[in-house]
Amino acid sequence: MRVLIIGGGFAGLNAAKTLGHKKDVEVTLVDKRNHHLFQPLLYQVATAGLSPAEIAVPIRNILSDYSNISVVLDGIERLDLESKKAYSKLGVYEFDFLIMACGSSHSYFGNDSWENFAPGLKSLEQATEIRRRILLSFERAENSKDIEEQKAYLTFVIVGGGPTGVELAGSIAELSRVTLSKDFRNIDPSKARVILIEAGPRVLAGFQKSLSDKAQRSLEDSGVQVWTNSMVTNIDKEGVQVGKDFVHTKCALWAAGVATSPLTKDVNSNKDKAGRLVVNKDLSLEMYPEVFVTGDMAAFKNNGDYLPGLAPVAIQQGQHAAHNILNKVKGQPTEDFKYFDKGMMATIGRNKAVLQTDHIKMNGFFAWMAWLIVHIYFLIGFKNRILVLFQWAWAYFTYKRGARLIVSKKWKE
Amino acid sequence: MRVLIIGGGFAGLNAAKTLGHKKDVEVTLVDKRNHHLFQPLLYQVATAGLSPAEIAVPIRNILSDYSNISVVLDGIERLDLESKKAYSKLGVYEFDFLIMACGSSHSYFGNDSWENFAPGLKSLEQATEIRRRILLSFERAENSKDIEEQKAYLTFVIVGGGPTGVELAGSIAELSRVTLSKDFRNIDPSKARVILIEAGPRVLAGFQKSLSDKAQRSLEDSGVQVWTNSMVTNIDKEGVQVGKDFVHTKCALWAAGVATSPLTKDVNSNKDKAGRLVVNKDLSLEMYPEVFVTGDMAAFKNNGDYLPGLAPVAIQQGQHAAHNILNKVKGQPTEDFKYFDKGMMATIGRNKAVLQTDHIKMNGFFAWMAWLIVHIYFLIGFKNRILVLFQWAWAYFTYKRGARLIVSKKWKE
Repeated sequence: MRVLIIGGGFAGLNAAKTLGHKKDVEVTLVDKRNHHLFQPLLYQVATAGLSPAEIAVPIRNILSDYSNISVVLDGIERLDLESKKAYSKLGVYEFDFLIMACGSSHSYFGNDSWENFAPGLKSLEQATEIRRRILLSFERAENSKDIEEQKAYLTFVIVGGGPTGVELAGSIAELSRVTLSKDFRNIDPSKARVILIEAGPRVLAGFQKSLSDKAQRSLEDSGVQVWTNSMVTNIDKEGVQVGKDFVHTKCALWAAGVATSPLTKDVNSNKDKAGRLVVNKDLSLEMYPEVFVTGDMAAFKNNGDYLPGLAPVAIQQGQHAAHNILNKVKGQPTEDFKYFDKGMMATIGRNKAVLQTDHIKMNGFFAWMAWLIVHIYFLIGFKNRILVLFQWAWAYFTYKRGARLIVSKKWKE
Repeated sequence: MRVLIIGGGFAGLNAAKTLGHKKDVEVTLVDKRNHHLFQPLLYQVATAGLSPAEIAVPIRNILSDYSNISVVLDGIERLDLESKKAYSKLGVYEFDFLIMACGSSHSYFGNDSWENFAPGLKSLEQATEIRRRILLSFERAENSKDIEEQKAYLTFVIVGGGPTGVELAGSIAELSRVTLSKDFRNIDPSKARVILIEAGPRVLAGFQKSLSDKAQRSLEDSGVQVWTNSMVTNIDKEGVQVGKDFVHTKCALWAAGVATSPLTKDVNSNKDKAGRLVVNKDLSLEMYPEVFVTGDMAAFKNNGDYLPGLAPVAIQQGQHAAHNILNKVKGQPTEDFKYFDKGMMATIGRNKAVLQTDHIKMNGFFAWMAWLIVHIYFLIGFKNRILVLFQWAWAYFTYKRGARLIVSKKWKE
């Protein structure tokens, strides 16, 4: 039986591993990038803490031992679930079973022009672009003789108070107040304003209120200005309009809305408000029992609420979809997916994090240690674990950052 | 006195350090990039062995302790040595003394269209572009059903048999024969052809003939096809024309001619054949005793021959130019530059290198160990030394490579 997996993120990769070495299944994993990306640490690439290669591993290499798995660098452009075919620029993939694991991208709520002035953070390319913009802002401020312009270069606006927004804001504050503090002559980087804008009443809305409050206080301790109940109404090259307020900035970042993959438009199925595909209890689609949907693409109801787009959800769903395909190949019934909730965590900066499970609520140093350990543990590749651990230990003791590179988008002069 | 240094490579950086903390000099170092690059290891970034940040350090950070030095991210576009001014897009720099340390770029001998099909290797941007092309070639070959096309994707042509060309060819051969050998299903990467093309009669022409010959044999052992006495007459998207031969390839790389910085055109001075500025014995220009020229820009005669464009030459000249400026500030005469020749080395691959000094001639394992030690020692930053050492040890024992990332040039989808 031919199994096609679209996407090599947490869901797709774990689905593939589960199908590896299994009899009667020939697996093809298609991804438009050659690497699996450990997205939870992507904000550290964007803020010059880690190098891209430290959180990315070639998918081909991770799966090289499984002779029944082929990895193809290709982008699927159209699906035909009736005839069980997926079309790309390079050709057609026919399948008996399909696992959709294409993840999500950012939604600008219909204002796509905002993306140029406030990039989102989903890929390595975006992370290095954000890093370029942040570091370049300090350089431009250093060169500027106009006070107003200097202030705009030293103002960083992050839109969206979820984990990514909080982590970005905390890191930029640390960068300006600690790492860069002695490197400039005309500006004082520690005077940079870092403004975190959240439309709802509190940051980290997925967490309990007491932890959200602690996170906000930690951010403020680090020098971040937190604006809650604040809706962004426009972003252009001059700055960010927040209701009647206007912030003059040369560097805005987007960590707000989530959009699903464009491939969902080819799928005849119920969708939730965010456009995710509503799945059966076994993760298959109602109309297509041989198509499984996983990770950020899937709307799966758990105790009445849809599961959030988190790495543990994607990992467990990828594995479960693969198990169900193996069941079907053997002629056995599929099993319902049950989410094993290991909790949530977010880090704010040096010694600061929040952590919440069913039974535990924690913040401060021990939550931060737990965050470190969990992220090192789940990182793929023994070598990357050592490298990241070393980078973190180095940064912790020296207050320096590993990858302060401004790299141009052009390779020719 | 105001000292302007143009360029933060080996020459500029060492000049700045020499002037750091010195009385009566206010130093401005201008570079169009924010990082100092350890160019001798750039080929390892291009062949997925190291990450960019491991061989690049922010110039601003290296010099942050010297309060008399300002670092500016800016590109000088025009010089007026008569009025002692340097012009950029951002403004004008006035100076009392100038150190020119702008390095060199590639020359395509008047065929600039070749650059698109055969990029050179001078910057991090070029290195990641070359890495992208090499890794993408294997991916495209894996996807191709056309034998002729597959062969073209698995043919790598490197033009120029100097140290960079030799190191690139050796690394690509190792990548194809060792690192990637098990990761593909439709192709056998170890069947890739790696062709090194040299116009002269032997590779590594700067070394003694016996070492050149050993280097060529080592390359051939590793699977590189070496074509000497071969002149490239055309490069386009189909391949490389070498006299009457034609090689069908999708991935050609350029490691041949060297061109000096465009700024040399603004300098009224004698130039050598390569366009470098002929300097006095104290490294100043004949017409402008307050202008010093260092590194790849300078044509300095040593025992009858012009010194080659090597890191040790640039380092020593940068320091010497700075010393002579300090002498002039104190009203003392300048001193002649004397090159202390520490020898040359080049690596071909695992356990293989050649090394030559006035008294020693060495190849094989011990030359390779010497190469490793010298390169770790001269790398800037204690952290980068540890990281690179770790990457090398890891690669040596696991046969894997640290940074097999294909990163797109666009950050938006």
